[in-house]
Amino acid sequence: MENCKITANAIKKIYIKGQIHDIEVGMRQVTLTDTVTTKGKKEFNEPVRLYDTGGVWSDENVKVDVKKGIPKIKEQWLAKRKADKGQILTQMALAKAGVITEEMEYVAIRENMGHINDDKSYITPEFVRQEVAAGRAVIPSNPNHPEAEPMIIGSRFLVKINTNIGNSALGSDINKEVEKAIYSCLLGGDTLMDLSTGKDIHQTRENIIRNCPVPMGTVPVYQALEKVNGIAENLTWEIYRDTLIEQCEQGVDYFTIHAGLLWKLVPFAKQRLTGIVSRGGSIMAKWMETNKKENFLYTHFEDICDILARYDVAVSLGDGLRPGSLHDANDEAQFGELETLGELTQIAWNKNVQVLIEGPGHIPMHKIKENMDKQIAICHGAPFYTLGPLTIDIAPGYDHITSAIGAALIGWYGTAMLCYVTPKEHLALPDKEDVRNGIIAYKIAAHAADIAKGHPSAMERDNALSKARFEFRWNDQFNLALDPQRAREYFGESSHGSDYCTMCGPNFCAMRISRQISDK
Amino acid sequence: MENCKITANAIKKIYIKGQIHDIEVGMRQVTLTDTVTTKGKKEFNEPVRLYDTGGVWSDENVKVDVKKGIPKIKEQWLAKRKADKGQILTQMALAKAGVITEEMEYVAIRENMGHINDDKSYITPEFVRQEVAAGRAVIPSNPNHPEAEPMIIGSRFLVKINTNIGNSALGSDINKEVEKAIYSCLLGGDTLMDLSTGKDIHQTRENIIRNCPVPMGTVPVYQALEKVNGIAENLTWEIYRDTLIEQCEQGVDYFTIHAGLLWKLVPFAKQRLTGIVSRGGSIMAKWMETNKKENFLYTHFEDICDILARYDVAVSLGDGLRPGSLHDANDEAQFGELETLGELTQIAWNKNVQVLIEGPGHIPMHKIKENMDKQIAICHGAPFYTLGPLTIDIAPGYDHITSAIGAALIGWYGTAMLCYVTPKEHLALPDKEDVRNGIIAYKIAAHAADIAKGHPSAMERDNALSKARFEFRWNDQFNLALDPQRAREYFGESSHGSDYCTMCGPNFCAMRISRQISDK
Repeated sequence: MENCKITANAIKKIYIKGQIHDIEVGMRQVTLTDTVTTKGKKEFNEPVRLYDTGGVWSDENVKVDVKKGIPKIKEQWLAKRKADKGQILTQMALAKAGVITEEMEYVAIRENMGHINDDKSYITPEFVRQEVAAGRAVIPSNPNHPEAEPMIIGSRFLVKINTNIGNSALGSDINKEVEKAIYSCLLGGDTLMDLSTGKDIHQTRENIIRNCPVPMGTVPVYQALEKVNGIAENLTWEIYRDTLIEQCEQGVDYFTIHAGLLWKLVPFAKQRLTGIVSRGGSIMAKWMETNKKENFLYTHFEDICDILARYDVAVSLGDGLRPGSLHDANDEAQFGELETLGELTQIAWNKNVQVLIEGPGHIPMHKIKENMDKQIAICHGAPFYTLGPLTIDIAPGYDHITSAIGAALIGWYGTAMLCYVTPKEHLALPDKEDVRNGIIAYKIAAHAADIAKGHPSAMERDNALSKARFEFRWNDQFNLALDPQRAREYFGESSHGSDYCTMCGPNFCAMRISRQISDK
Repeated sequence: MENCKITANAIKKIYIKGQIHDIEVGMRQVTLTDTVTTKGKKEFNEPVRLYDTGGVWSDENVKVDVKKGIPKIKEQWLAKRKADKGQILTQMALAKAGVITEEMEYVAIRENMGHINDDKSYITPEFVRQEVAAGRAVIPSNPNHPEAEPMIIGSRFLVKINTNIGNSALGSDINKEVEKAIYSCLLGGDTLMDLSTGKDIHQTRENIIRNCPVPMGTVPVYQALEKVNGIAENLTWEIYRDTLIEQCEQGVDYFTIHAGLLWKLVPFAKQRLTGIVSRGGSIMAKWMETNKKENFLYTHFEDICDILARYDVAVSLGDGLRPGSLHDANDEAQFGELETLGELTQIAWNKNVQVLIEGPGHIPMHKIKENMDKQIAICHGAPFYTLGPLTIDIAPGYDHITSAIGAALIGWYGTAMLCYVTPKEHLALPDKEDVRNGIIAYKIAAHAADIAKGHPSAMERDNALSKARFEFRWNDQFNLALDPQRAREYFGESSHGSDYCTMCGPNFCAMRISRQISDK
């Protein structure tokens, strides 16, 4: 089994330098072995460059001490920019002013997946600037999280995935959450939300941010609620505002804020099969129903944006009324809230705050397109960021799959970022293995969408892997896989020769026979 | 944790009697507990009836001896019919003659999922007859497999799933294959293919058929090839014909036959990235290239149909040139073969042989619809039966997910049956746990498609489960799930109260808060 051992040194971290700025963009490069034809002829295979979200965690040459955190990649850019302007300007403000930032060039190089000045390097720094200026794309960029590598969320870029981690009152500890965060980045999570609602919220977040090479989001009302001992009706604007500032200072890159859930919409939710299933949404609904007042996140939305603009924290407008079942999909409650999100988008943009729009949830396949179309029409092209959607309700334990179907579809239709769902959804907090299964299911959905959308270099990896598969270059196939370890494990469980596997055995291997027929 | 114990007696096998014929159609019925509102009010919930593929294996009142096999449900119908006509007529012949068979009434009752004479019992025995007569639906019905419960494959019916089991020269034994077969039926596999290519092919198949309550298919060329010691070019029509008859006698309900792979198409496959990936296809290509002759399955297709008509074995026209990578999807090789399958369909129908058309394979999302549209146009409405399709190539170890996305889409577009893919695809033979993961992924895809197609009662189960979820009736939720055991296992791993789970803990459970707001 010579050709089945793990050849980790075939996967290397490489860095591509910027042409405008003094930046270096990390990527993974997979070196391939030669093709050997059935006649013994050797042919070279080009290495394949892969988008990499692992930061220094995927660079074997960088040693990291988790207690100190990872290197601060953006520190110098920010220092220089602050010295120039005397204050932090948001990426959107700079983009509107015609400035191509380090972040913009960085994401342009990243999105081209290693292509430089060829027909597949179609994303230019100027194109990035235009998309950010128009609000059609977001580069989450809190300067207090200088460890995060720039990435972009927008429908004209690669589809991104977000992973959720975080404890609850009933489970997990800080080290486990940090471990899950790093694991998420290594496996391909583009952003990470810490949804902790248990103890040590501040410290858990601190430890994650300092080790996190991807932008991080939170739902600040969770921590605010903990500050009033879990009693929703006791929340105040002041407590919420102070929580926002605390998290801005700490380095959170985007906040989910349920400012679109208006009081008048709550009665619509009461008519539903499954009411309100957004945690933030249910908290705000209870606050409004008890205090008989409009949602303070809505009434204070301009104040919120003023704070966010100071830190270039993006707002992710939460869908507090997202459907929690197929039955409630595309109803008056859901689309009513979307109208408000459209209004809020323009308020935020006027203050140069970058905006994401959150979307559902549970939607049968034939109703998914309507969601995307309405979101584009109502929210002025702001990037859509959906949870799944789940396409059926009857598979608890497999909701990473029920939702990967919906995620692939809505990504194809134009959603910019897909929030993952793990197999434990509806049942329990995910452990590390659940995080893995959720991430891979969503990498699959995002990649399927990238290909269907026609991203010019999306299929290169598929073609390289398929060629390796046809030529029985098992290690190349595994190194190009989304989860090389899992593929190796399944393959290696059984014993067999090197030019077939146990599925077909030697006489029935179609690829083996086909190669014999075709090879020159 | 009173309400978390397994209450298996909430799931019962029930039987619904026919109105035309003396038949009894098995179903699963899930009895639900009462709703208890937050104010303590009780409300009754109607039981839910589920389509059941388990046969007697899901009836606790029937004891089975695997050595003797399961009861022969169709024995008396067949005896009566033979006495009437003096010979076996196919379902298609009877349908064309205006006869509503026991099988047709059986599947009508089954497809209505327990609805009788209400607005959701829209499928009538006469509608079934018309669809079978027109070739738009297939009821696989070899009289030598009287143990199989009738089921129907057609785009106007519930989307079905097929599972593949079977050994190879390198793995598995008879008992394990029988165990996988029964497991498949219990989990929801609608048909089952025994793709054994290893030793004891005949005996393995015998033991499976005698215990199998669903129709069973094979690829007869596998056994024929074993008879010539694995040397493809030594195959002859006579050996193949004798194998067909052997398997017809044994009770196989449908055969995959690669009769559409013409000699002239082989050169197109040589230009591909991944050549020929169908086992049957590669065997026939090698036979043609070595013997310099046209495919004998094509030249003898009328003879084949004459044999199949005598046993009402359906032909599943194999796609020997299905693409093995995204790169090769929708190419000249693939669509060239489809043209031939269209011709063969009419030859088979003229002899009253029921026809399925097999489809790919590997297709990016945006090219799936073209496959469905072409199949309908070229193959005169014969039911489409696809393998996946996989929507990306880079996830070995997760191809049940890459393909569930494509399967859901093509099912929505009109594919009648989805051949499952397990996580071990491309890597190894599936074990029992892989069969489970493959089946559930495909039950998800099929159900998502049924809902998107607007099947009138498809969403009843989702609504009942979602209501149970919202009301914290955990056991009802689990009993309604596609895989109750998995859901219970995930839920039960962590300790918690009965009206929330570890995901959110008590203060952050949206459903809990929402119910408090909504309940009367």
